[in-house]
Amino acid sequence: MHPGEHLEELEELLGPAGVLTVPSDLVRFTEPYRGAPGPAAAVARPRSVDEVRDLVRWARRHRVRLLPQGANSGLVGASTPPAGAGGSGAPVVVSLERTAGDPLIDPIDRTATVTAGTRLSTLNEKAARHGLVLPIDLCADPSIGGMVATNTGGARMLRHGDMRRHVLGVRAVIADDDASVIDELSTLRKHNVGPALTQLLVGSSGALGIITDVVVDLGRLPDSRSCAWVIPTNADSALEMLLHLERRHGEWLEAFEVVSAEALRSAVAHGAPAPFGPEVVPELSVLIEFAGDAPAEDRLVSALGHLASQGLLTEALVVPADTAWATRHAITEGLRGTGTVLGFDVSVPRPALPAFRERVRLAVAAIDPDALVADFGHWGDGGIHCNVVVPGMATITPDRSAALREVVLGTAVDGFGGSFSAEHGVGPGNADWWYRTVPAPVQRTINSLKRTFDPLGVLGHPGLPFG
Amino acid sequence: MHPGEHLEELEELLGPAGVLTVPSDLVRFTEPYRGAPGPAAAVARPRSVDEVRDLVRWARRHRVRLLPQGANSGLVGASTPPAGAGGSGAPVVVSLERTAGDPLIDPIDRTATVTAGTRLSTLNEKAARHGLVLPIDLCADPSIGGMVATNTGGARMLRHGDMRRHVLGVRAVIADDDASVIDELSTLRKHNVGPALTQLLVGSSGALGIITDVVVDLGRLPDSRSCAWVIPTNADSALEMLLHLERRHGEWLEAFEVVSAEALRSAVAHGAPAPFGPEVVPELSVLIEFAGDAPAEDRLVSALGHLASQGLLTEALVVPADTAWATRHAITEGLRGTGTVLGFDVSVPRPALPAFRERVRLAVAAIDPDALVADFGHWGDGGIHCNVVVPGMATITPDRSAALREVVLGTAVDGFGGSFSAEHGVGPGNADWWYRTVPAPVQRTINSLKRTFDPLGVLGHPGLPFG
Repeated sequence: MHPGEHLEELEELLGPAGVLTVPSDLVRFTEPYRGAPGPAAAVARPRSVDEVRDLVRWARRHRVRLLPQGANSGLVGASTPPAGAGGSGAPVVVSLERTAGDPLIDPIDRTATVTAGTRLSTLNEKAARHGLVLPIDLCADPSIGGMVATNTGGARMLRHGDMRRHVLGVRAVIADDDASVIDELSTLRKHNVGPALTQLLVGSSGALGIITDVVVDLGRLPDSRSCAWVIPTNADSALEMLLHLERRHGEWLEAFEVVSAEALRSAVAHGAPAPFGPEVVPELSVLIEFAGDAPAEDRLVSALGHLASQGLLTEALVVPADTAWATRHAITEGLRGTGTVLGFDVSVPRPALPAFRERVRLAVAAIDPDALVADFGHWGDGGIHCNVVVPGMATITPDRSAALREVVLGTAVDGFGGSFSAEHGVGPGNADWWYRTVPAPVQRTINSLKRTFDPLGVLGHPGLPFG
Repeated sequence: MHPGEHLEELEELLGPAGVLTVPSDLVRFTEPYRGAPGPAAAVARPRSVDEVRDLVRWARRHRVRLLPQGANSGLVGASTPPAGAGGSGAPVVVSLERTAGDPLIDPIDRTATVTAGTRLSTLNEKAARHGLVLPIDLCADPSIGGMVATNTGGARMLRHGDMRRHVLGVRAVIADDDASVIDELSTLRKHNVGPALTQLLVGSSGALGIITDVVVDLGRLPDSRSCAWVIPTNADSALEMLLHLERRHGEWLEAFEVVSAEALRSAVAHGAPAPFGPEVVPELSVLIEFAGDAPAEDRLVSALGHLASQGLLTEALVVPADTAWATRHAITEGLRGTGTVLGFDVSVPRPALPAFRERVRLAVAAIDPDALVADFGHWGDGGIHCNVVVPGMATITPDRSAALREVVLGTAVDGFGGSFSAEHGVGPGNADWWYRTVPAPVQRTINSLKRTFDPLGVLGHPGLPFG
């Protein structure tokens, strides 16, 4: 049934500001950060749990697909409607942005109770007043609900873990016959009472429920932070440096970001600070961050001295944290300036990182000698953003793009037992690899669980494997 | 149908050593650590995933209840058969102990792949050779599979988190029509590919699947460890000490165990070292542990000096770690020597800890002026083992016991928004409070999920709310 026929009914439920239908109002909800935009029948903006329930009941009544969206900063195509599926296939995007509010922070408990539409930056601004932080570091400002639904990781996961580790409980509306409220919104750290539905909602990409509220465990803001850019002797030395730092300075190690020459060059070309001067672009460089409750720089300098004495590095420069990260954060934009970028977010077991880099370069070169592998990533968790850049601004053919994708993901998954989606989650952009790599009994079981949460299939992006 | 009729068939599947039926062989599987024993039709001891599948198919064929058991060290009655349910109601206990083997440790990856029947002590002995540890600290030596199924917490959870935080993936056999293998046995830290069945199996008490293998993330063994017993000025000071230590020494704080006079007195009477000498039993004492990669004692002494200068403590003694923990670990046995112990494992939000202690004492005294509240616990995570001791060795009446239980759990849950099971999990011993406190839509949804994993209802303790 065409959702348009029922939008007046929805407007009665959510109020006039609760339903957007003017095309210019929809653009920010239908254009993804990466990939092609797709048409939405409308954007629903409920303000409360009751309004979310009304919305779900409406969608069930009329068999309209609801597509929950956070801050639309996802990278796997799961937050915007599929391209070209207009008419009766167009979903209603659900935005919780009007729930955004003032996080409730308990500094003695070190917890925050937050509505789903609240941005990470809003939470962290308020948490900082108490010396606290939700220590998930991303090149984006997602909504808290979106962070739970996609289980975001980030550059400091090595130390602080992913979103799952910080979520103490959620409240969500599922699409069963009652549009039930799953209320596990507790601030308790120790509350071990059987299977936790919260844990199933983490990473569910909006296909199992619409998250309305979240309780997170907060960490302490460190008193001191210090960064260095380092040139490792080679890739094996980079891995050895990581192990040494974990072993001897584990309480301090906040990030260990390894950047290829290709990635660093493009960041510098984009105007980012050149860590080793404009002339020096080493084959690999490492951004190391220490943070803690005493002067971090002293500790970092002493650690670097030890690494140098072991012959693991050839140069190390302590750099102000903002400057150091400015280079790292400029990579993605920088790469876009040098050609057509195919971005892959893979992981492999940590011992395989150097070999993976070598093998993926050979495999890409065999297909396209002009293509560059511009990888950078979070070696501490085995994550690599393995970008393939085809120089020049010409669009590449779908066949060539598919072949490059096949070798990169195939090398990670089949070659080294890695993952096709280290931290970005699953969406239509990588659903084919979900079908290919997730064992059939797991697929079957997840699809069966889906029917408990959403028997009519009205929740989540239609291109999700479990949507 | 009586399982006994089909045990020969089971023996053909698992071999003669795979099925125990001689009563004297069954005792260690049917007698719980706490509570009354119950009869088992047999103990099945499969050695492999295939044998677990055969066992599940057998149980489905004959509608026999399987009760998965780890090391039988649980405290909520979920690991042994219900008392008095002999004959056709007696389940077959499933022990994975014959899968116990050599953990596969990857020191570069900091991961271990372990069979479910392997004990924590075996894993940690091998991990220690690489300077690594699974940092879950318990007064027991559970099996790894049991630790996942119950999501164990422990005394160092403040720093290292619960079992969930360390589980990277599991392999399990569920009881669907195919006795499917759910294989999520990956060593990847970053593998963010949608809903994770592993996370649903964590804490499922054996009711959703039989876990056969586990991959865990290992931590580093600290180079240095130091402990102190401290007398806080009062309960509020204890909480303030905790906050100060987290804020200024968070990377060092490994445990913060607060012990009541009643609990300390019984440990000392039981022969444990008296931290402040035999004559001094303060109203509250705190065991503080620091651990890290530099001399922990220097850091601890300096922290204690600061706490003293703030007037938060009246005495602080640095004590060798073994001696310090010997006192703490003697509490449970010590209490048993002083009377009838009713043990409750509750948690409350951290700010409520002092008020909870006061209110629960008043409530218990109103029911039984002779009863002592001998609490101790992990204040860092809001957990309190709130024991009520009725002096003397006479058994107390069921009515009195029920009334005491009602006020302790009621004060935690209804009075302070706490939990009736902070870390012990759910079993027949506390199922009534699960029904009472878990919202009806959550109960309904969990029961619906259960039908996906086990449509015939052959898995898990029959007294589990989701069994």
